[in-house]
Amino acid sequence: MTINMERPYVVGMDIGGTNTVFGVVDSRGNVLASDSVKTQNFEKVEDYVDAICKKLVPLLEPFGGVDKIKGMGVGAPNGNYYKGTIEFAPNLPWKGIIPLAEMFEEKLGIPTALTNDANAAAIGEMTYGAARGLKDFIMITLGTGVGSGIVINGQLVYGHDGFAGELGHVIVERDGRTCGCGRKGCLEAYCSATGVARTARELLIARSEPSLLRNIPAEEIQSKDVYDAAVKGDKLAQEIFDYTGTILGRTMADFIAFSSPEAIILFGGLAKSGDYLMNPIKKALNENILKIYAGKTKILLSQLKDADAAVLGASALGWEVRDN
Amino acid sequence: MTINMERPYVVGMDIGGTNTVFGVVDSRGNVLASDSVKTQNFEKVEDYVDAICKKLVPLLEPFGGVDKIKGMGVGAPNGNYYKGTIEFAPNLPWKGIIPLAEMFEEKLGIPTALTNDANAAAIGEMTYGAARGLKDFIMITLGTGVGSGIVINGQLVYGHDGFAGELGHVIVERDGRTCGCGRKGCLEAYCSATGVARTARELLIARSEPSLLRNIPAEEIQSKDVYDAAVKGDKLAQEIFDYTGTILGRTMADFIAFSSPEAIILFGGLAKSGDYLMNPIKKALNENILKIYAGKTKILLSQLKDADAAVLGASALGWEVRDN
Repeated sequence: MTINMERPYVVGMDIGGTNTVFGVVDSRGNVLASDSVKTQNFEKVEDYVDAICKKLVPLLEPFGGVDKIKGMGVGAPNGNYYKGTIEFAPNLPWKGIIPLAEMFEEKLGIPTALTNDANAAAIGEMTYGAARGLKDFIMITLGTGVGSGIVINGQLVYGHDGFAGELGHVIVERDGRTCGCGRKGCLEAYCSATGVARTARELLIARSEPSLLRNIPAEEIQSKDVYDAAVKGDKLAQEIFDYTGTILGRTMADFIAFSSPEAIILFGGLAKSGDYLMNPIKKALNENILKIYAGKTKILLSQLKDADAAVLGASALGWEVRDN
Repeated sequence: MTINMERPYVVGMDIGGTNTVFGVVDSRGNVLASDSVKTQNFEKVEDYVDAICKKLVPLLEPFGGVDKIKGMGVGAPNGNYYKGTIEFAPNLPWKGIIPLAEMFEEKLGIPTALTNDANAAAIGEMTYGAARGLKDFIMITLGTGVGSGIVINGQLVYGHDGFAGELGHVIVERDGRTCGCGRKGCLEAYCSATGVARTARELLIARSEPSLLRNIPAEEIQSKDVYDAAVKGDKLAQEIFDYTGTILGRTMADFIAFSSPEAIILFGGLAKSGDYLMNPIKKALNENILKIYAGKTKILLSQLKDADAAVLGASALGWEVRDN
């Protein structure tokens, strides 16, 4: 991170299917101001960029305006770091390949880098969070889906095409559950918030024992409900976390065989399930790890502040942005 | 690769459970002279190092002796690049942690780097073979076992402990075949030469149809026999390759989700099975690949000359060796 006193701030932007949040961040990782727009309100990407700029420019005013900004980092689904494009993102309104970094650069004059949201989280964690000082780690984001950002030798792994690190789509169960990607048995279909809810629905049908979850209409069960039930001592809810953590832990053993990271860092809503998830993860990891790696890789939780995490993660990329 | 005219050669050494081969290599990848010792003949590692030096020093004489050697690269099972040690290698006579690089440096005065054999093969391929010019690729060695060397951003991935890249021990079949590592269902238990022989024995029992392989006592079947039978049109032998290639191809789809490499390069005896193995690999890869990666990763065969490959691969590390 190079801090230039003439340009002491960066902008971070997190593009989600529902909301786009953006903010001004200083070198210590304080989000000084932020705002948002509804992503889904904009059928045309040009209108979307206009609407963001209309809110972002006044947001920058108290800090000296565009001239004080070192760079902007954008985290977006299917973001291509090399090209600054969003490519065929299924949950965004704009189809095909969108040159979003270029559009912002032209409009604002701020050098802009873009990558996928999990990569942005990894860079954020390395800059401000639990991965400070680590050169080899894997970030796994457990949200609606499962994403990942892989850091090796202190560098984010982008692969030859800019799309490396889709660990949510490693197959954990051959011919298993259908995944949103069209394939079957992906990690994401089991170990995301939606995967947990799916496991709940399956188990409630397969079993006859009582559970607090039976008070909720099956279609409405969320992973948060499973957590709340587990906290109240519900055995079935705890078993759902056991099942989820076991799959995640044994899959981590395979990830470790790839890059032998010092730590795997968990991020996102589901990562806040405490020992209900962490205990089975650690147990399954220990039982499945290749001997030479045993006990070497720490499993950590993200240290990014919750409300700011997405903006902060993306903003960290703004410090590294190439000058052009 | 830095060529220093005062030190225009490197030494490459490949340590196998049976033989240790070493040779002098020039900057174009010509193995100018080579020799070997029987690894298993030396109970004490000190005697082993002495015996090698006694053969290596005269080997270097015609090229100007030790003073003309830039460095030595050693490929060894369970080699730790960071420490220059061999650690708990099950197939070598010496137990515990052996500081082999240091022992050679002290004895010969040649800076020595050591890594595992598959990593050495990857560096060799990048320096002299099919991976020239590639910055992101995965080398998979299909021999008695399955090894791997992963290159990202032009750098070999060692991980935080020096042991990254054990893709032969990714689980492909939960609770599947017992592997030499003590776990179950590893890629190596299916897609190595020994895995192919195991598949042959299993299929010959499970099926009743005729096969040329029935002429060989089950315990003696080698992967080479399966290949020879496949070439003669033996359907069961061809099915064994289909089974092997299918597992390998769909597992490669998971590897690609990790580092999105430009190529996966196959090396070793089994890789020479031609289309019998390559066709099912490509078919399974196409059927299992995540859409954003489809058609992007080439599957290539090693271009290292057969007899020299191991020495050449290890020698390439000699060009990169740190001066000390």
